[in-house]
Amino acid sequence: MGLFSADIKTMDDLFVHTLQDIYYAENQILKSLPDMIEKATDRDLVTGLKNHLGETKNHIVRLEQVFKLHGKEPKGVDCPAIDGIIEEAEELAGDVDDKEVLDAAIIAAAQAVEHYEITRYGTLVAWAHQLGRDDCAAILQKTLDEEKSADKKLTTIAESKVNRKAAS
Amino acid sequence: MGLFSADIKTMDDLFVHTLQDIYYAENQILKSLPDMIEKATDRDLVTGLKNHLGETKNHIVRLEQVFKLHGKEPKGVDCPAIDGIIEEAEELAGDVDDKEVLDAAIIAAAQAVEHYEITRYGTLVAWAHQLGRDDCAAILQKTLDEEKSADKKLTTIAESKVNRKAAS
Repeated sequence: MGLFSADIKTMDDLFVHTLQDIYYAENQILKSLPDMIEKATDRDLVTGLKNHLGETKNHIVRLEQVFKLHGKEPKGVDCPAIDGIIEEAEELAGDVDDKEVLDAAIIAAAQAVEHYEITRYGTLVAWAHQLGRDDCAAILQKTLDEEKSADKKLTTIAESKVNRKAAS
Repeated sequence: MGLFSADIKTMDDLFVHTLQDIYYAENQILKSLPDMIEKATDRDLVTGLKNHLGETKNHIVRLEQVFKLHGKEPKGVDCPAIDGIIEEAEELAGDVDDKEVLDAAIIAAAQAVEHYEITRYGTLVAWAHQLGRDDCAAILQKTLDEEKSADKKLTTIAESKVNRKAAS
């Protein structure tokens, strides 16, 4: 979460810091998705990533709502985790020639991104309840559900590609 | 995955590269767990992390078996994703004074590590089947199941801490 952890004294500080971490992460994902969409070739994969681009924009709006409800200005903090995950994704999507291999690599990279979001939103929902912020938890839960659903769709796309190949 | 992606031409190359990625990641996790164990204060959390340290050693042995079955020498490649996740974890575990907040931060960090492993092992199991390596898939599946179980145990510890506090 790229922080001076000495600034974190309470569960509330930890909650706000993790909100800032995922706010940064969502904005980095928003920047990197168009490049992945451009490189993907499978039609279902392209559609899935485009849908997730739209969802990501909405996730950022929801985070801004949570910041506001909690009386804080939306801001991000450096997040070496998402930077590393995206760095791997971009390297992989770089110049693999074979379309099947490239699509498989893009799916794997996108699922690594989803899992990072799933773990952070899961934690944030739990902490919001703990802090008595059921209003914030409800908003964060919507995004968590969408991240889980996006991850499952990517698994389905990966499996259907394998099955189509086996049947051809 | 820290790679020169031009070297990845086939699904087999991608499978081996991702094995190398998670082999590096498991070794980095093995190095970082003792520090997290030392900083954790909740007894269940300390026990859970110690158990996972033992499991991690076994995951490395299993990866070496998979490399061997697949006719490759075990080796790692740089993995910016796990480096970033661990960097965040170490910063968080740095110098938070409050024990409850520190334990919560350690649980969140450990769950981020678990989710990275879950996504990579999930992908590797699928690719192993696709490549006709059901023998490798069976070994990788055992580790995947343990990672999922470790993640669930961390959620249980987090929830029980909150419930104990509410009851006190």
